[in-house]
Amino acid sequence: MKFDPSTLKFNEAGLIPAIAQDERSGEVLMMAWMTAEAVEKTLSSGRVTYWSRSRQSFWVKGESSGHVQELVDFRVDCDRDCLLVVVRQTGPACHTNRRSCFYTAVRDGREVELMAPEE
Amino acid sequence: MKFDPSTLKFNEAGLIPAIAQDERSGEVLMMAWMTAEAVEKTLSSGRVTYWSRSRQSFWVKGESSGHVQELVDFRVDCDRDCLLVVVRQTGPACHTNRRSCFYTAVRDGREVELMAPEE
Repeated sequence: MKFDPSTLKFNEAGLIPAIAQDERSGEVLMMAWMTAEAVEKTLSSGRVTYWSRSRQSFWVKGESSGHVQELVDFRVDCDRDCLLVVVRQTGPACHTNRRSCFYTAVRDGREVELMAPEE
Repeated sequence: MKFDPSTLKFNEAGLIPAIAQDERSGEVLMMAWMTAEAVEKTLSSGRVTYWSRSRQSFWVKGESSGHVQELVDFRVDCDRDCLLVVVRQTGPACHTNRRSCFYTAVRDGREVELMAPEE
């Protein structure tokens, strides 16, 4: 079946969540949002492109930092309201310079930092 | 630092997205939503508990199907607006009886089914 981005379910703001996973380690790197046009740009360019809610503009991941995400596989969930992008990540995915945005664990009721910022 | 669920950033509906990842395979299984109380229930019970937006009630994953998610690790992202639950999944995570909800890939402009429902 031909894929049509307009068949995805977007929220009232026209956005769909996209989870980025590292193709090699399987690590979940981050979650951000896409518009239908960001989905099209991601698929056509092979560069993962989100929608920045704070800046209200397209956000080609790594465009300024160099920490780009090359698209390896693009997946849609059963309800068509969430995306999973499998990526080849250059450098850290998180703006704090950590490999993943999910660097804080909650264990025994306390927050534990799992990884330090990279150099 | 002691973890306080009220320090998470919930959307205007009081919800935060939670990504479930299989602890063994690293596979991303599903994404659903939690309220602050669902976060507390998940942490205190060790059973992953979402908020069902369609039923407007707590959804202890697997309560009716038996396909429970035992909490292995609970993580918060840098912006505190997304959660990652690492889980021990019993049976398929998806209501279609597939291991993961992300069973559809988009390749060369077409939708491809990556896995079949389990028996």
